[in-house]
Amino acid sequence: MRTALAAARDAAAAGEVPVGAVVMRDGEALAVAGNAPRRLSDPTAHAEMLAIRAAASVLGRERLEDCDLWVTLEPCAMCAGAIAHARIRRLYYGAPDAKGGAVEHGPRLFGQPTCHHRPDVYAGIGEREAGELLREFFAARR
Amino acid sequence: MRTALAAARDAAAAGEVPVGAVVMRDGEALAVAGNAPRRLSDPTAHAEMLAIRAAASVLGRERLEDCDLWVTLEPCAMCAGAIAHARIRRLYYGAPDAKGGAVEHGPRLFGQPTCHHRPDVYAGIGEREAGELLREFFAARR
Repeated sequence: MRTALAAARDAAAAGEVPVGAVVMRDGEALAVAGNAPRRLSDPTAHAEMLAIRAAASVLGRERLEDCDLWVTLEPCAMCAGAIAHARIRRLYYGAPDAKGGAVEHGPRLFGQPTCHHRPDVYAGIGEREAGELLREFFAARR
Repeated sequence: MRTALAAARDAAAAGEVPVGAVVMRDGEALAVAGNAPRRLSDPTAHAEMLAIRAAASVLGRERLEDCDLWVTLEPCAMCAGAIAHARIRRLYYGAPDAKGGAVEHGPRLFGQPTCHHRPDVYAGIGEREAGELLREFFAARR
C-alpha cells in the first residue's frame, strides 16, 4: 500500500485526484499507476484501470486470477466492474468513498446477484493516509 | 447503429464476443470500436470503453457531454460507469443483457442514488440483429 500511496501523491502533484493502485503477483509489483484522466484526456484512466491494463499487458492475457489489487480509495462502479472482468483474486483498499464507491457503498457491485466474480475484499488498509491525501487535495482547490 | 453492428461483426470474425460501439458528435462518428479483450490482452477492452477512450483522445478532453454512444448490447457495470464518468449525453443500445447488463438489469447503475450522471437511455435499437449476432457466435462455439 506504500507504493500505491506514493502513486497517489504523484497524481496529486500532477493535478489529478490523488488515488494510486498496484497490481501484485507472487510478491512482485506487476504494475503501478496513479489516477490520470486529465493528463491522458481519458475518462476511464482511474488508477485501478491503468494498473489492471498494464498488468494484463505484461502477462499477455486478459485474466489476472493470480493477482491482487491494492488501491488507496474504494473503487467506483467502473473499476469494480473491471476488477470482476479481470478476475482479481484479492482487493485491498484504503479510504471508503461514500459518494463514488461501489464496493461498500452505492450499487455494492460484488454483492449483486449478476456479479460473475467477487474478489476477497480487505478495506481500511492505509485509510488514514489515503483519506488525508484526498482531503488536502480538495482543501487546496477550494 | 449500422456502423456499431458492422464493428460487432468484425469482432466476431476476430474471435471476440460480437459487440460494437460508436461515439457520435454533431452527426459525425468520432470513434468506432469492436469488443477486443482477447486480442488486446485487456479485460477492460469492451467496445464502449475503446470507443469512449478514442473519442476523448480525438477531442483532447475527458468529458464527452456533447456526444452520444451507440452500442449493440446493454452496457455492463464497468462500461455504464465509464459512460457516467464521460458524461455521455444519450445512450442508444441494441440487445438487453440479463446476465451482464447494468442499465436495465443487475445494479441498474443509472438509477443508483450515488450515480453522478445519467445519460438519456434509448434501448432496443437494432435489438434483433444484435441479439442474432451474439446467439450465432455462442452457438458456433458450443
